Amino acid sequence: QTKPKFDNLILFSLPIFLGKCQKTLTIDEEVAKLLELKARLGGDDGKHQFVLKTAKGTRDYNPKQMAIREKVFNTIISCFKRHGAETIDTPVFELKETLTGKYGEDSKLIYDLKDQGGELLSLRYDLTVPFARYLAMNKITNIKRYHIAKVYRRDNPAMTRGRYREFYQCDFDIAGQYDAMIPDAECLKIVHEILSELDLGDFRIKVNDRRILDGMFAVCGVPDDKFRTICSTVDKLDKMPWEDVKKEMVNEKGLSEEAADQIGEYVSMQGGMDLAERLLQDHKMSQSKQACAGLSDIKLLFSFLQLFQVTDKVVFDLSLARGLDYYTGIIYEAVLTQAGESVSVGSVAGGGRYDGLVGMFDPKGRKVPCVGVSIGIERIFSIMEQKAEASAEKVRTTEVQVMVASAQKNLLEERLRLVTELWNAGIKAEVMYKKNPKLLSQLQHCEESGIPLVAILGEQELKDGVVKLRVVATREEIDIARTDLTSEIRRRTSEA
Amino acid sequence: QTKPKFDNLILFSLPIFLGKCQKTLTIDEEVAKLLELKARLGGDDGKHQFVLKTAKGTRDYNPKQMAIREKVFNTIISCFKRHGAETIDTPVFELKETLTGKYGEDSKLIYDLKDQGGELLSLRYDLTVPFARYLAMNKITNIKRYHIAKVYRRDNPAMTRGRYREFYQCDFDIAGQYDAMIPDAECLKIVHEILSELDLGDFRIKVNDRRILDGMFAVCGVPDDKFRTICSTVDKLDKMPWEDVKKEMVNEKGLSEEAADQIGEYVSMQGGMDLAERLLQDHKMSQSKQACAGLSDIKLLFSFLQLFQVTDKVVFDLSLARGLDYYTGIIYEAVLTQAGESVSVGSVAGGGRYDGLVGMFDPKGRKVPCVGVSIGIERIFSIMEQKAEASAEKVRTTEVQVMVASAQKNLLEERLRLVTELWNAGIKAEVMYKKNPKLLSQLQHCEESGIPLVAILGEQELKDGVVKLRVVATREEIDIARTDLTSEIRRRTSEA
Repeated sequence: QTKPKFDNLILFSLPIFLGKCQKTLTIDEEVAKLLELKARLGGDDGKHQFVLKTAKGTRDYNPKQMAIREKVFNTIISCFKRHGAETIDTPVFELKETLTGKYGEDSKLIYDLKDQGGELLSLRYDLTVPFARYLAMNKITNIKRYHIAKVYRRDNPAMTRGRYREFYQCDFDIAGQYDAMIPDAECLKIVHEILSELDLGDFRIKVNDRRILDGMFAVCGVPDDKFRTICSTVDKLDKMPWEDVKKEMVNEKGLSEEAADQIGEYVSMQGGMDLAERLLQDHKMSQSKQACAGLSDIKLLFSFLQLFQVTDKVVFDLSLARGLDYYTGIIYEAVLTQAGESVSVGSVAGGGRYDGLVGMFDPKGRKVPCVGVSIGIERIFSIMEQKAEASAEKVRTTEVQVMVASAQKNLLEERLRLVTELWNAGIKAEVMYKKNPKLLSQLQHCEESGIPLVAILGEQELKDGVVKLRVVATREEIDIARTDLTSEIRRRTSEA
Repeated sequence: QTKPKFDNLILFSLPIFLGKCQKTLTIDEEVAKLLELKARLGGDDGKHQFVLKTAKGTRDYNPKQMAIREKVFNTIISCFKRHGAETIDTPVFELKETLTGKYGEDSKLIYDLKDQGGELLSLRYDLTVPFARYLAMNKITNIKRYHIAKVYRRDNPAMTRGRYREFYQCDFDIAGQYDAMIPDAECLKIVHEILSELDLGDFRIKVNDRRILDGMFAVCGVPDDKFRTICSTVDKLDKMPWEDVKKEMVNEKGLSEEAADQIGEYVSMQGGMDLAERLLQDHKMSQSKQACAGLSDIKLLFSFLQLFQVTDKVVFDLSLARGLDYYTGIIYEAVLTQAGESVSVGSVAGGGRYDGLVGMFDPKGRKVPCVGVSIGIERIFSIMEQKAEASAEKVRTTEVQVMVASAQKNLLEERLRLVTELWNAGIKAEVMYKKNPKLLSQLQHCEESGIPLVAILGEQELKDGVVKLRVVATREEIDIARTDLTSEIRRRTSEA
């Protein structure tokens, strides 16, 4: 095979890249892309250079990060379990067709697998579509489930801000035909509980409804076939000022200036139950049946939120749009409002009602109403990591209770015998993998990894049938009868 | 685009399939493959039919399966933590190059991602190669870590026997320069502990050493460049009788009949430390320095296994080969020996020493010796599921302690108020998402999902400031002062 010369390649590849990604790519990103391409083609000298890295937009978790991750997951899972959820799991890839037509303009971000013969597959883009596929496939009409797993998006990564191409979602969904707004309100209660418990600073949960958006578009004179595309433009309001959003509506999407201005008036409105009541009286908005249905539900929602004691953080915000195609009713998004040390981390949870999605998979189109919420964990990790970094407290990455050590040489066999006793009794114990480790290096290992106790063996201790138990923090040492050792270790580490 | 006619396609595709997969494909599998192809091309009438399924060789886990999976994971993770392991995580895909040249003949089973511009990526095939890449990338020279995650292999699935294309591996590895055979022995201790605790019936752990295999090949007259390919043929001895293995060696791999026969004699040998001693005296085997080094280490290993109290299940077995390229020393594999209800599930754990793998990633080739074990969880799930199915005990899929119910109409608000009190106090509680649910259907839900308590509200209870607490199992009902409710629920569910 002949290889195209690199310099020539730049000439024809550059315009292609610029054409495709015009809006989002900076010059730096252009350069990065070309360097990547260069590396793939073998660099300047045509010689191949192996790059030791993870795939773009992904990362490893080291033991410290995993300890933080475990803590966050435990908080979230406890909350989901407190609300009575079961859990399921689905494969990391789905038939490509399963994902087709579910994500609107975001579909271009889906990772496809190579056609190696057999089925055409794609990595999951979220956990909602696989959940709907699962319900339809198993003919399940009601379930309350959580699902914590990684999803994949070929987006422009911004790893310092917690935006990755592989990231966790923690989803909680309620499927079933129930009375209006009760499960919807519980989802918001859950977001409130989790964000409060994680102690990430102040937050706000924005609420809106697809029917209110659609009704608003209708009464503002947006043509029917432009609802979805105008909706994704509105969705950019959290990243762009209104003037730019308006420009995109008028110049790119061909909306009349008048319609855009009317939308601009509505999307600046924020409030609570009172705003919903006012809009129900609004001479224009009240012309749309859809909008009225949505506004009545917002009122009902707020009445339940009052009972759940979470109205302090919830705002009815007409600028909230959310890009995904499948939402049919209420939508929401939680944002942290306390500016962090660095830049704002943006949305940390989002969700809504999607009553039509399961029906898209059912051969007879039978619908299963669903509402759910997804916690975006990576941004939360970023904040927790920064916090741990700043704090003086050391993060332990193991749970070892005791180190089996020796003060003299030639005691490997005795150490292995003792550590076996401890393991068999369920004690978390370590031993150094050396024939004759120095006592100092054994003690140092305990200091470094936070192991609280050392069980020290010597000729004398073996003769006396005892073990010298050393408390690492205080350097206190006492002889314990070998038969009492496990209960003594348990006693001393149970309060920790 | 024109579409090839399906009938024509059969004619040319059949021989290709047969050629590629000759040995392992049955007629049924051929038919399945062709039907799949047919579905992709749009079926007989050329009309597209969406298929509601998961990708071939993958499956969903329902809540009951997840409850079992959680139990198995907890057992395994406790064991890893008892032995002082930290945990890490790596992305589901790696640069394609990272996986290249690590898996020998199995490389054809790697899933590649589609080239969508950017890097060429593949799904991870195991957790060992990503671990080695992680060590080299972060210049880590010693660590004891576990990693539980899914891996991907485009193998022929046999789902009833627990063989999937997406499956979990639970890996424990020790990296670092240590004294011989101590970490290796701990890996076997861990396998012994986990398989004993999971209570899957009797098991055996086979042990061998790559150096013994290579030495054996050398003294039996296998040419150097055929070691690896003969090794993969020996690896098939657990699935094929010796006669077929010999035929493959002689007819396909071009080995002399005499050499094959000599190999046949060795690979029938099984024993313990005594066998290692005997082979060290063997006039032929003792000519290989490599074999002698391996045999001495097997002896040392068994002496540690005695101290760890696990020799009852460990067998030195010269037929054990393991297909992967990266092993350099001891190798092992655990099999369940009690024939289950259905067919044998085969190997449930395996591992070995791979001292060269990290060096393959290091720019300067610096080596980090490693030894590890991987628990094959899917087969264990299959057995546990069968057991749960056979047992009378019901598997609970939620942990709900109490259901907040009402006996009369129009008490939705009061139910929501009470469930909020309980959630805020950390009680796991549910409420029906209906304005006026029947008391009977509320109680039925408790029966079905194993919720032990019901907190019943009625007009009278509200007036009296009490809640009627019902014990589902006994139907006993008592009035509890509202202020005492959470402590009473906690008291009654803490013993469970």
